[in-house]
Amino acid sequence: MTAMRGIVLFGHGSRDPAWRAPIEAVAERIRLRAPDAVVACAYLELCQPTFEAAVSELVDQGIVTLRVVPMFLGMGRHAREDLPGLVQAAQQAHPQLHIEVLRAIGEHAQALDLFADLSVL
Amino acid sequence: MTAMRGIVLFGHGSRDPAWRAPIEAVAERIRLRAPDAVVACAYLELCQPTFEAAVSELVDQGIVTLRVVPMFLGMGRHAREDLPGLVQAAQQAHPQLHIEVLRAIGEHAQALDLFADLSVL
Repeated sequence: MTAMRGIVLFGHGSRDPAWRAPIEAVAERIRLRAPDAVVACAYLELCQPTFEAAVSELVDQGIVTLRVVPMFLGMGRHAREDLPGLVQAAQQAHPQLHIEVLRAIGEHAQALDLFADLSVL
Repeated sequence: MTAMRGIVLFGHGSRDPAWRAPIEAVAERIRLRAPDAVVACAYLELCQPTFEAAVSELVDQGIVTLRVVPMFLGMGRHAREDLPGLVQAAQQAHPQLHIEVLRAIGEHAQALDLFADLSVL
């Protein structure tokens, strides 16, 4: 049996459920692509669950590694300052967990290319 | 000579220049893909230019059609409520302009697929 891996999609959060829909849609797509992964969404503010709660839930399910995907267009203050603090606290709470943080989803070169393609179609 | 077209990338805005970098990078990629288009970034708050100022600048440059690309992951309040008001005001200020508004850049199916791919790589 391989070690269970977790993926957390971390977004800003909004009172508006419509705002969350695409993040939840990405989580659904990840579940189809990686049936071995346990996937959760987590938010900085305005909606639940928090990052801390989502990570604890995945750890309870037995994950050994955690990948954090910042669902932001750019590495602004939330991804650059708020998230590292949350990751550090999670690492202290779960010292055995191996945590990897990707860069903001919108900053990958493929995303920039796709956004440009969609804009000129 | 074909009618000049304008493209405005409309984002939330941030005091943090790093936040804007990917939006400006998308604008640069659009200029390479569509040399006939005039491209501008515009922001709801916290940084310049405003949507109104960006549109006026493009109209002064002679654009006849305007495509607005909401640089948001999801159609939350900003894309669903704030932006339509700004578009309506721009239409009143420039009655000849043909304005088209795309849906939020992060909600296109290709973007959801790419975000999932990047998350499981």
